Amino acid sequence: MQHTNGHSEFAERRARLEPTLAEARANAFLTTARPNVHYLSGFTGSNGAVLILPGRVILFTDPRYATQAPQQSDCEVVVAKGPLLAEVGKWARRLKLRSLAFEQNRISFEEFTQLRSVLKNVRLKPVNGCVEALRMRKSASEIGTIKASVRLNSIALEQALEQFQPDMTEVDLAAEIEYRMRLLGADGTAFETIVASGERTALPHAHPTNHPIQRNQLLLVDMGASVAGYASDMTRTHALGKLNAKTRRMYKAVLESQLAAIEAVKPGASCTAVDRAARTVLREYGLEKYFIHSTGHGLGLEIHEGPRVGRKEKTKLEPGMVITIEPGVYQEGLGGIRIEDTVLVSERGHEVLTPTGKELVVL
Amino acid sequence: MQHTNGHSEFAERRARLEPTLAEARANAFLTTARPNVHYLSGFTGSNGAVLILPGRVILFTDPRYATQAPQQSDCEVVVAKGPLLAEVGKWARRLKLRSLAFEQNRISFEEFTQLRSVLKNVRLKPVNGCVEALRMRKSASEIGTIKASVRLNSIALEQALEQFQPDMTEVDLAAEIEYRMRLLGADGTAFETIVASGERTALPHAHPTNHPIQRNQLLLVDMGASVAGYASDMTRTHALGKLNAKTRRMYKAVLESQLAAIEAVKPGASCTAVDRAARTVLREYGLEKYFIHSTGHGLGLEIHEGPRVGRKEKTKLEPGMVITIEPGVYQEGLGGIRIEDTVLVSERGHEVLTPTGKELVVL
Repeated sequence: MQHTNGHSEFAERRARLEPTLAEARANAFLTTARPNVHYLSGFTGSNGAVLILPGRVILFTDPRYATQAPQQSDCEVVVAKGPLLAEVGKWARRLKLRSLAFEQNRISFEEFTQLRSVLKNVRLKPVNGCVEALRMRKSASEIGTIKASVRLNSIALEQALEQFQPDMTEVDLAAEIEYRMRLLGADGTAFETIVASGERTALPHAHPTNHPIQRNQLLLVDMGASVAGYASDMTRTHALGKLNAKTRRMYKAVLESQLAAIEAVKPGASCTAVDRAARTVLREYGLEKYFIHSTGHGLGLEIHEGPRVGRKEKTKLEPGMVITIEPGVYQEGLGGIRIEDTVLVSERGHEVLTPTGKELVVL
Repeated sequence: MQHTNGHSEFAERRARLEPTLAEARANAFLTTARPNVHYLSGFTGSNGAVLILPGRVILFTDPRYATQAPQQSDCEVVVAKGPLLAEVGKWARRLKLRSLAFEQNRISFEEFTQLRSVLKNVRLKPVNGCVEALRMRKSASEIGTIKASVRLNSIALEQALEQFQPDMTEVDLAAEIEYRMRLLGADGTAFETIVASGERTALPHAHPTNHPIQRNQLLLVDMGASVAGYASDMTRTHALGKLNAKTRRMYKAVLESQLAAIEAVKPGASCTAVDRAARTVLREYGLEKYFIHSTGHGLGLEIHEGPRVGRKEKTKLEPGMVITIEPGVYQEGLGGIRIEDTVLVSERGHEVLTPTGKELVVL
């Protein structure tokens, strides 16, 4: 009785791939991309390939994962001693495979040439982002895991800020945040933690430095945990003491912009419309030109996945999608402000998953 | 005077690529792979492309990195508003590019088709691992950074073990290790920290769990820091109280195997020979069949890079290469032991960079 409920969810996901295979006129499908291997088989190791055939699914891995793979996955497991693609080739010949869909967005040009050489009599059919398309709509169990990741992330920030002291460096605070995440049960961080203070907040992707965090400045923290493989993502910008009027106005503008974008999140709304809602508010404040990235992105097994919530993304939101909403304004020499929540598209509208408050906190 | 010594090292690296371009009969080279972008331009952001032309080098990135890129790199910086490959296409037309070498091991099949469509009149020449080949031999400044990473990693383990308490879980210890790394100045971990105790040590790539670490068992820790982008990698297996005679013998065998492999490291020795030295010792103990992975791997800007120290890797070691030596023995139901150091190939032989002792430590 290895096939518990958890396992049958993987089988369901694989079944949802069938229309793609039919459309590509392929009778088999191969993925070697880690998040897609995880999604379709349950296996989380660093080296895996899933081959889906009519009535049969094979997970290939190497001897390091010989024990782990059958524990995690409902697939037939093949432990290869050499390169996985060579082993896939052997099985393809044995099983008389005639056509195979491969992920052109995931496989390198070199792996493609390897596949072509080990699968001489197999027609190779490129498909593009088909597992990623399935992954955009999260199942109830995935939403549960993302909620756990988001909650843990918020608690980690709260606990880290309790340890905050005026002479701390950006690195110290990043260390504290990641330590709390880990103790609370995260697998690790979902991305490089950003802690930036003062003028460095104007760099949207600043690495923490040994700068002591100083009074009367901005402090921007962008952090995400990985919990059972699922990412969370939150940004908060705090004030250390007094901010000048211009900066307080910037904060107000970004918060209104973020709330307007969240308000626009509902099934059927296009990502463009959500992005536009954020930009419109910033335009009213004369700050639109300082908003130099997209409003948000999907997240799940990867920190950046579909849909992109940007100017040109026409995807319509559907229930079960989980996206970030994170407008920001960056002015060199003055600083930057970004506010970010993780938001679930629900049947009727949206649910903001991030519990952390957004009023300007003075530390 | 932006072109400091640090910068001219990037120019030197780019110059070392010229023979590859000549061989590929291409007058330009493109990389989009993050570690190769870092290596050739100094830029560390998550979205970059380097285009090398005769007498000109352009670094493409997006507006998030508009401030950071010119600070880090000696290249001409182009900030693209849309996808980088489209921007590369525009410049290629403007500069009347006729042929371009691309990294077939790094670029996805999809990116290749995009390149082909934006570079219609340009001959595309696949090259394979040419930057990775340069990266195998580290410069003096790279060796300095790797040494700093290795030392920091060892200090982090020492500090974390000082906090060790008998009721700690694997996750608690992993959290402590990563916290210490961060406070000591690491950018983060170089890979997912492995903390496994008891029978779970038999899984070479175990995730830390909420298992309390118990008495009279093995405790395996495999950890690496990232310092200024450069990885370290170390494994130690400790005893919690008394181990049985069989396990003690296993430890002795793995340690002898590791020392024999290190002894074999010198310029001109093949990776196969180093791997064989490790296996020969384990065979004498009747344990060779439980050694289910390679003896080691190169490391630097990535945690796994060339050369692979495995059975079939014929690469000859050269001064400046930095590799791990990490034989292990894994017996289901009993446990696993692995001992790993980071080792520099020196002019005359080798230098073990890892300062942590390898005698069996009883916690």
